[in-house]
Amino acid sequence: MADSRFFSKARIFTVGELADMLDCALPEDADASVVLDDVCPLSNAQPSHLSFLDNIKYKEDFLTTKAGACLVSPQMAEIAPKGLVCLVSDTPYKAYALAAQAYYPEKQPDSNISKLASIDKSAKLGKGVCVEQNVVIEPNVEIGKNAWIEAGAVIKEGVIIGDHVRIGAQSTISHSLIGDYVRLYPGVRVGQDGFGFAIDPEGHVKVPQLGRVIIEDHVEIGANTTIDRGAGPDTIIGQGTWIDNLVQIGHNVVIGKGCIIVAQVGISGSCIIEDFVAIGGQAGMAGHLRIGKGAQIGAQSGVINDLDGGEEYMGSPAFPKRQFFRQVAALNRLIKRKKRD
Amino acid sequence: MADSRFFSKARIFTVGELADMLDCALPEDADASVVLDDVCPLSNAQPSHLSFLDNIKYKEDFLTTKAGACLVSPQMAEIAPKGLVCLVSDTPYKAYALAAQAYYPEKQPDSNISKLASIDKSAKLGKGVCVEQNVVIEPNVEIGKNAWIEAGAVIKEGVIIGDHVRIGAQSTISHSLIGDYVRLYPGVRVGQDGFGFAIDPEGHVKVPQLGRVIIEDHVEIGANTTIDRGAGPDTIIGQGTWIDNLVQIGHNVVIGKGCIIVAQVGISGSCIIEDFVAIGGQAGMAGHLRIGKGAQIGAQSGVINDLDGGEEYMGSPAFPKRQFFRQVAALNRLIKRKKRD
Amino acid sequence: MADSRFFSKARIFTVGELADMLDCALPEDADASVVLDDVCPLSNAQPSHLSFLDNIKYKEDFLTTKAGACLVSPQMAEIAPKGLVCLVSDTPYKAYALAAQAYYPEKQPDSNISKLASIDKSAKLGKGVCVEQNVVIEPNVEIGKNAWIEAGAVIKEGVIIGDHVRIGAQSTISHSLIGDYVRLYPGVRVGQDGFGFAIDPEGHVKVPQLGRVIIEDHVEIGANTTIDRGAGPDTIIGQGTWIDNLVQIGHNVVIGKGCIIVAQVGISGSCIIEDFVAIGGQAGMAGHLRIGKGAQIGAQSGVINDLDGGEEYMGSPAFPKRQFFRQVAALNRLIKRKKRD
Repeated sequence: MADSRFFSKARIFTVGELADMLDCALPEDADASVVLDDVCPLSNAQPSHLSFLDNIKYKEDFLTTKAGACLVSPQMAEIAPKGLVCLVSDTPYKAYALAAQAYYPEKQPDSNISKLASIDKSAKLGKGVCVEQNVVIEPNVEIGKNAWIEAGAVIKEGVIIGDHVRIGAQSTISHSLIGDYVRLYPGVRVGQDGFGFAIDPEGHVKVPQLGRVIIEDHVEIGANTTIDRGAGPDTIIGQGTWIDNLVQIGHNVVIGKGCIIVAQVGISGSCIIEDFVAIGGQAGMAGHLRIGKGAQIGAQSGVINDLDGGEEYMGSPAFPKRQFFRQVAALNRLIKRKKRD
Repeated sequence: MADSRFFSKARIFTVGELADMLDCALPEDADASVVLDDVCPLSNAQPSHLSFLDNIKYKEDFLTTKAGACLVSPQMAEIAPKGLVCLVSDTPYKAYALAAQAYYPEKQPDSNISKLASIDKSAKLGKGVCVEQNVVIEPNVEIGKNAWIEAGAVIKEGVIIGDHVRIGAQSTISHSLIGDYVRLYPGVRVGQDGFGFAIDPEGHVKVPQLGRVIIEDHVEIGANTTIDRGAGPDTIIGQGTWIDNLVQIGHNVVIGKGCIIVAQVGISGSCIIEDFVAIGGQAGMAGHLRIGKGAQIGAQSGVINDLDGGEEYMGSPAFPKRQFFRQVAALNRLIKRKKRD
Repeated sequence: MADSRFFSKARIFTVGELADMLDCALPEDADASVVLDDVCPLSNAQPSHLSFLDNIKYKEDFLTTKAGACLVSPQMAEIAPKGLVCLVSDTPYKAYALAAQAYYPEKQPDSNISKLASIDKSAKLGKGVCVEQNVVIEPNVEIGKNAWIEAGAVIKEGVIIGDHVRIGAQSTISHSLIGDYVRLYPGVRVGQDGFGFAIDPEGHVKVPQLGRVIIEDHVEIGANTTIDRGAGPDTIIGQGTWIDNLVQIGHNVVIGKGCIIVAQVGISGSCIIEDFVAIGGQAGMAGHLRIGKGAQIGAQSGVINDLDGGEEYMGSPAFPKRQFFRQVAALNRLIKRKKRD
């Protein structure tokens, strides 16, 4: 299914091989020897394809799919259409992710330093590094092994980059220490000055931004996202946090492990976001707030106070989700009553 | 009027020539032989200038303009100031657009391949193509005739680009098929991985993004906008859709023909936006929604349900526009009542 | 404190030297001869460090700091912990900014034109200019003295840039006149076409954008921000205005002096923002509005009407701040009453 101009399939699998690899249960009557030559969404899948059901919105597609096999939860397996082989997992989407990675492993470039790259002689590059055209690597930069620096990226003086990192085309990085297995998408800006100045009618006075950006291992940062360096303390992105496109992260922000930050979110300076917080698209956080562990903040929320962990929030200003929807309902009752009056 | 350092005027026109070209009516007493040597906004226009009135907010400027002629609707022509020649059109703004294009046709670069571009020998470039400095064109890319690839753009492996396309400076494109007469502004990111992963406390698991981005003919995409490729299905931007700056379009989104998407809008993954939908600035759409044909979604709206076509919506969560403004009015009545209490 | 891989300290100061330089009062019993070898936030400061207190949120850090000296307001000086030398100022944050600049003056690059830059022979470059790798400077560009053009920036035909300007890596500039001491961060897009077209079911018709961008002296523009050129009039950014990351400024917008525009704000076309307006993050302005001098617009506000100067506003649609918080309170009373019912 995947366009071969862009994707290379590594191999194919039998149902049995997939069940073993993904730690899935097979119904008793399932034929483990069926060969599945590709992965595919439910709606387009053919009998030789592996598909998955994760979002209940796609139940209809599930009931009518032509897929040969499907990764599903135990509950959904019970209503599977006849002839569909169910690979049953408590985490079917994770299982699909691993399956798709097995069919289509991520491309790794050959180790190669482009003659069109501009690399200062004091920079240290690890084994297996790929540096593409027009990359600029300034003095005293260190880049770990098997890192991939895409075309046009600019790595400013003194930046340290770990192993197996991929830096997207035309990203810029300064004043930063970056861990292993980090990935920056194209156009990311990391380490520029934070928005720090003393307001003055004679002309705002710049406050030197003397901190860094620390990015821990396994972080992903989406296209055109901007992460300012600290003003004195550092800006820190915790291990395994995923950040989407066009996100703004202000100076001194500290983000914990495993957070999920959806596109166009803005996090003002000096916020502390604890581990496993999820922030929906376009939400914003005022400065100097603490968001507790595991909090879930809805899209477009506007957070102006510290939030306890483990709860869902919505609205601008943000309230617990139930309270927000009660507000919306109350407003609508109000306008109906008015109409009746 | 236009600064000659940046713009070249191709020629000048008489009122009569313009009326013919733009299919405008002239009042009986109008002098068709008047020469108009430039286009200009109402407020600064001089007697030798052509201007236009489209937004009623500028009625005062219309009544006091020194312009020699003005493109206007039939209604406004009736109150035109004395001496102003009215070129009457049902679509005066469109007529102005065509007039301005005639005075100032868009610059076309000479066909030229910069020696500083890095073009893989397997890439195919059409006739008349201009490739500027530091452009990177990877293997198996195909670029149509008269395309203009501005400085520093990176076109990744296998991308297909149609005729008369203009790719802005420092844009990056991967995993994409792009039609004719498409224009990307600087810093656009097209085709990078969507934000797809299975949430896992041990570390989120990446879901390979195996789809593409399909951009149909005559699409415009604003500066620093990001369009992720599909996860399995494709991300599709329909013919003639215009997208402003800093917009985020998630994986699998399908946008119809002739849509208008204003700056900083965010469209979450797997949304279907039907033809001729208009979305105001900073509005956001939750994932997996369908927005009906011709719907108009106000700025900053937060859409969390499917929306019927042909209606106007506002608010977060979004409601039909009338209901939204009734909500706002009800709230303000409520606080007034409180004050009286 | 600052990481020496990224920052160079120019010198150290005694308390007395700082008090003189920053025009601060010293308590009678203060020892002016104490040497302070660095600046540091309150929470990490050591006895040899200068710190500052500006935000009352950090009062606890102030009361327990180990800093040797601290820039504070007269009121806070009265409750300073024993042994802390207070440098008393009515503007302690401004004093800190100046102090930090004195310890860590901004790096200036050597005057140097990279051999990897592509500079048209008609361009004029002032004395002391630094042009980094892969910069593209098109015909008839003029760049003032001591300007610093970072790697990969593209300066299109005819652009004029003043003295002491710094253009961030991979920025693009066209159709613009830029004053002195302006700073663009990486990935800024200035001068591309505004979002101007006549809506037409047969295909929207482009309106040529015949204006420019004028950026006055001492303006800062954050990473990946986009500023479209005017459609006929110019887009103007007034002297000393600071703009954060990922901001969108539409065509014909006129911004006054000393404004502060926080990240992800969107300003629609033809708005007039008077002097000293402050706009919080993610706020949006509809088109053709006038915002009065000194207005303060809260984060995420949605402005749909002209606003008087000198007031604070919040909400979407935006209301005076007090009214907004009364609305929020009224809503919450309403849902409590409902629960009692």
